[in-house]
Amino acid sequence: MSQDFVAILFGDPFAIMNTIGLVAFALVGSSKAVREEFDVFGITIVGLSMAFAGGATRDLLVTRVPLALQSPIEISLGLFGVGLAIALSVGLSSPDTHPITLVADAIGLAAFATTGAIVATEAGVSAFGVVAIATINAVGGGAFADILLDRAPFILFEDFYASCAVLGGSAYWVVGTLGAAESTAAVVCAVVTVVTRLTAVTYNWNLPTVQNSGPLND
Amino acid sequence: MSQDFVAILFGDPFAIMNTIGLVAFALVGSSKAVREEFDVFGITIVGLSMAFAGGATRDLLVTRVPLALQSPIEISLGLFGVGLAIALSVGLSSPDTHPITLVADAIGLAAFATTGAIVATEAGVSAFGVVAIATINAVGGGAFADILLDRAPFILFEDFYASCAVLGGSAYWVVGTLGAAESTAAVVCAVVTVVTRLTAVTYNWNLPTVQNSGPLND
Amino acid sequence: MSQDFVAILFGDPFAIMNTIGLVAFALVGSSKAVREEFDVFGITIVGLSMAFAGGATRDLLVTRVPLALQSPIEISLGLFGVGLAIALSVGLSSPDTHPITLVADAIGLAAFATTGAIVATEAGVSAFGVVAIATINAVGGGAFADILLDRAPFILFEDFYASCAVLGGSAYWVVGTLGAAESTAAVVCAVVTVVTRLTAVTYNWNLPTVQNSGPLND
Repeated sequence: MSQDFVAILFGDPFAIMNTIGLVAFALVGSSKAVREEFDVFGITIVGLSMAFAGGATRDLLVTRVPLALQSPIEISLGLFGVGLAIALSVGLSSPDTHPITLVADAIGLAAFATTGAIVATEAGVSAFGVVAIATINAVGGGAFADILLDRAPFILFEDFYASCAVLGGSAYWVVGTLGAAESTAAVVCAVVTVVTRLTAVTYNWNLPTVQNSGPLND
Repeated sequence: MSQDFVAILFGDPFAIMNTIGLVAFALVGSSKAVREEFDVFGITIVGLSMAFAGGATRDLLVTRVPLALQSPIEISLGLFGVGLAIALSVGLSSPDTHPITLVADAIGLAAFATTGAIVATEAGVSAFGVVAIATINAVGGGAFADILLDRAPFILFEDFYASCAVLGGSAYWVVGTLGAAESTAAVVCAVVTVVTRLTAVTYNWNLPTVQNSGPLND
Repeated sequence: MSQDFVAILFGDPFAIMNTIGLVAFALVGSSKAVREEFDVFGITIVGLSMAFAGGATRDLLVTRVPLALQSPIEISLGLFGVGLAIALSVGLSSPDTHPITLVADAIGLAAFATTGAIVATEAGVSAFGVVAIATINAVGGGAFADILLDRAPFILFEDFYASCAVLGGSAYWVVGTLGAAESTAAVVCAVVTVVTRLTAVTYNWNLPTVQNSGPLND
């Protein structure tokens, strides 16, 4: 049933969240590439990779052809985000760390955690599968973009980034298991993810590290 | 027939090797992340990634939904390995290079080479396909963990690591082609892999490099 | 219909381009690993990875088992390319930057852009899907090899590399949509890719970068 693209594109939670996520993450990915002084082609590739890599990985995990390769609307939304980033980069001094970009990143994270939870639930995987696919959908694009930019995927170092998608995906599963409609679960997932993420950014939350007691650490 | 998860989980070679491999690799991956002073979330992600990435890649290559996303037992075993690593890290000075971890790594390598060979044989791929999938299943988790830790995947530099999985996977194919039962082939594969790996670690085996005769090398 | 491997292996555009691409990219990948002083096993892995990673990703994106795992001919061609690279490395001072290697790289890029466009078209994806899969098939192997070699995937920095595959894949789609036969579209795709690539290397073409006007750039 997840193949019914006409239905997907009008009025259901997946289409709305997917649209938001694609534009937001294409903008964020392109902004990072602008900062690294990539050429126009490289900026476009990094932007589209950040927009599409998470969803494509999600689709491969449930063994279907990635939506991005089938729907012309997806690529249009991605290119729109890339164009926004290039426009912003002319006016802003540090487009990749500007509040606009940080908020877009949190919104994209929340939107893609939600699309991942929806697709995973439709595919009938386990509770862990729903949370894992929501998280991979949400952070996969950023991790892939970081590899292209030759950075260690930052999600592990920046506390409460991937964690927010884990919380959002878990909330989706709990609310859905309690009997809520897909649209209700989607709103809960998106709100939990974006609120925890923006709160973490604002208050600079940290998770504890494991203290290693040995004398040989450097 | 590889979809028969109930049968897989009781008494067959795949279930036994998979259980061993998941706990061993979750332990090894988490130990590396402890060493790098990741937070608890990062340690869990690296541990689970090392446990699941090889098998998930194997499953994608034979176009099925990764077992880790379907079976709640898999995630429990992975989290058990992560917990072991955190417990060990409190007591050991260098958990990632401790003999316990090195032996666990060799055991995980052997166990996952075997699960890869079993799944590949069931999927009906070529002889090269069996060896390739056994090797990818065995080293994929470590390579993925290394990328998350921003290291060059060490398997190419540490001699006789991936090579051991190649030997084990080849042994599985040879023994199976000669008519042995799956359980016999599995034992041979696991023994060849773990013995060659532990011998290589003990005696510090090296493969020859290609001498490049030109004057421009640096 | 893409499953008809017997037909694929005799006389059709896919088989011809695939053969050329496998040997060329195995040679290029192995040459890079020789330069980095990898051992024989590492050289073989990098060579085969460069030969197979792009096509395997393509096959996963259209949800089929990678051809490389099914056809014994594929691995033979890959190993032939690895052997060529080792033979060349004895006689040449810098095998990875020698004109033979640069031309082989351009030829492999063109051949794999073409196989990608053929498979994508058969799978019935969108116009963007054809161009994206052609590009991923063409540059996926090199990007994967670069990750194994711990370099940033060079395709984004070396101008008019991936761009050539984008142009070739686009040409395939345009010519095919205009009604040309598969073999005609394949020749157009390969010629566009290899000519633009060799011209770019010869004249050192560059794409414009986005000028970031802010004062905080470093």
